[in-house]
Amino acid sequence: MSERVVVLAHEKFPDRSKTANGILRYGDREVVAVLDRDRAGERVRDHLPDVQDAPIVESFGDVDGPVDEFVVGIAPIGGGFDESWRPDVRAAIEAGCDVTAGLHYFLNEDEEFATLAAERGVTLTDVRKPHEGLTVSGARSGEVSADVVLTVGTDCSVGKMTATMELADAAEAAGIDACVIPTGQTGIMVEGWGNPVDRVVSDFTAGAVEEMILEKGDEHDLLIVEGQASIVHPAYSAVTCGILHGAMPDRLVLCHEAGREVVHGYEGFDLPPLAEYVDLYESLAAPVEEAEVVGGALNTSGVENDADAEAAVAEFGEAIDAPAADLVRFGAADLVEAIR
Amino acid sequence: MSERVVVLAHEKFPDRSKTANGILRYGDREVVAVLDRDRAGERVRDHLPDVQDAPIVESFGDVDGPVDEFVVGIAPIGGGFDESWRPDVRAAIEAGCDVTAGLHYFLNEDEEFATLAAERGVTLTDVRKPHEGLTVSGARSGEVSADVVLTVGTDCSVGKMTATMELADAAEAAGIDACVIPTGQTGIMVEGWGNPVDRVVSDFTAGAVEEMILEKGDEHDLLIVEGQASIVHPAYSAVTCGILHGAMPDRLVLCHEAGREVVHGYEGFDLPPLAEYVDLYESLAAPVEEAEVVGGALNTSGVENDADAEAAVAEFGEAIDAPAADLVRFGAADLVEAIR
Repeated sequence: MSERVVVLAHEKFPDRSKTANGILRYGDREVVAVLDRDRAGERVRDHLPDVQDAPIVESFGDVDGPVDEFVVGIAPIGGGFDESWRPDVRAAIEAGCDVTAGLHYFLNEDEEFATLAAERGVTLTDVRKPHEGLTVSGARSGEVSADVVLTVGTDCSVGKMTATMELADAAEAAGIDACVIPTGQTGIMVEGWGNPVDRVVSDFTAGAVEEMILEKGDEHDLLIVEGQASIVHPAYSAVTCGILHGAMPDRLVLCHEAGREVVHGYEGFDLPPLAEYVDLYESLAAPVEEAEVVGGALNTSGVENDADAEAAVAEFGEAIDAPAADLVRFGAADLVEAIR
Repeated sequence: MSERVVVLAHEKFPDRSKTANGILRYGDREVVAVLDRDRAGERVRDHLPDVQDAPIVESFGDVDGPVDEFVVGIAPIGGGFDESWRPDVRAAIEAGCDVTAGLHYFLNEDEEFATLAAERGVTLTDVRKPHEGLTVSGARSGEVSADVVLTVGTDCSVGKMTATMELADAAEAAGIDACVIPTGQTGIMVEGWGNPVDRVVSDFTAGAVEEMILEKGDEHDLLIVEGQASIVHPAYSAVTCGILHGAMPDRLVLCHEAGREVVHGYEGFDLPPLAEYVDLYESLAAPVEEAEVVGGALNTSGVENDADAEAAVAEFGEAIDAPAADLVRFGAADLVEAIR
């Protein structure tokens, strides 16, 4: 993995740049600049005080010093490539940078970029394109020596990726050799590897997770698998179910956002009661591998004051009958005890 | 859809030719010949007395009269193309036949076949290749006017496709305007349309089913959706879950094979008790759309005498607390009452 990275987030930093923010917050590489033409001259810390700092510049030409990798850190709805990014991507390739993106539009299928990359000997990585070798699961994830924890959710966008990263960091801080198993675009970009499970052939969903578990499961003591969507999501539950059975986890952490009552983007569908999620995930997991919901991660970012947030966390813990926390607001140390 | 078809089943008829048998048993087209070089000179009725009859011949050159479509009715493990079939496929294209196959090897990507098909103006259809327009579900299957029944299973290869076809035929016989929603290779070949749900991008699993429900749901009174795999299958449950939530069925028919106790091909995994399947399917369906297991289809083809088969059916019905039948052995009329 390269060490010095530049992250493109034109016109979207920091409120609509989930991937860029993830790399700044959880990545272990040095971000030498963020590109956002709307905020050139500002710094990352002006907006996100608790992540690594970097200058914000207008274009790739304004970046100081050598760069190993150029990352497209935003994804418009639909996952297309915005032509206004082309000069920066071109300049990065010409400077000898590898380029990584998580778009539905594949850089490797862009004639200009592919030709230029071949000339310069740099690698274009489309993290949303599954590799060719994926296949059906052999149901062997249960055989690895590591304990396997899976973050599961009550819905999309409740904080499963964040919970995964916070738990891994807190586990490491507690002296546990932990490894994240990334299953989505941002997780893959942060970790620098992984399978985009929502883009694989549906028959290979569990297999794409198993492949990663088998690769890392005997090298670490704890694997924390990034979950996706929810088991009762009208559109995406297939991905959730495949990850649950493919990972064969020992323990589950249920992730929820305070106040969420209906399915995000599918507002005609109520979320079932929280206790029902616990039953559903456990009873669905059991025939393949017994797994218990041992903790809950509540995202209280929409709750203004700490006292209300603490009350929400307490209520959530009671509803799911397990220790709960907001891992970002109050820290993840307590939950690490529950999952170890 | 073409009317006169030839089905290739070299060296595999009838015991390992599931697709060919499905077309003979449930298709509404005239099968003018089956190709099996090991059985040339015999007839279909020598082996399968209860399906439409046809001569078995050695090669395409031995078929009498005009042919509209040539179907590859077998699929070796791995889904490859057997080069020994090439002369027959070539002869069919040269004779102006459309060719249909459900292999992982796509006829449209075979240079010789693609070139020849273009010259002759015939269509090569790879039913296992999903069409380009698939996308995420909008969770609208519940809006169609038809009642929706989904066949669900305790495992792979227990008879969901057969139950689907038998129920549809019996419903038609009872005067109900029923339509099969095919989700797998054989169902698609028999019906002449459908999405191969196990081959779509995992995020689009539910969407691929919804697309079909919306297409047919206001044209018929009853849709019978062909289920796949099982909700506790270690490798394929993602497909099952996506179909369950994508179809938004009103009623479920649980399919099982008498005597099956472990997951086929994954013998380290016991099947859970039958009643647990009922709970699992119903509780997983409910947050998206309430669905009840209203009947059971037991495959007793491995049970020798009718009295034992009847006892097995009775025991199965008791275990799932719903009317049960072996639809092939004892007919589907009773179960039609349960699903209507």
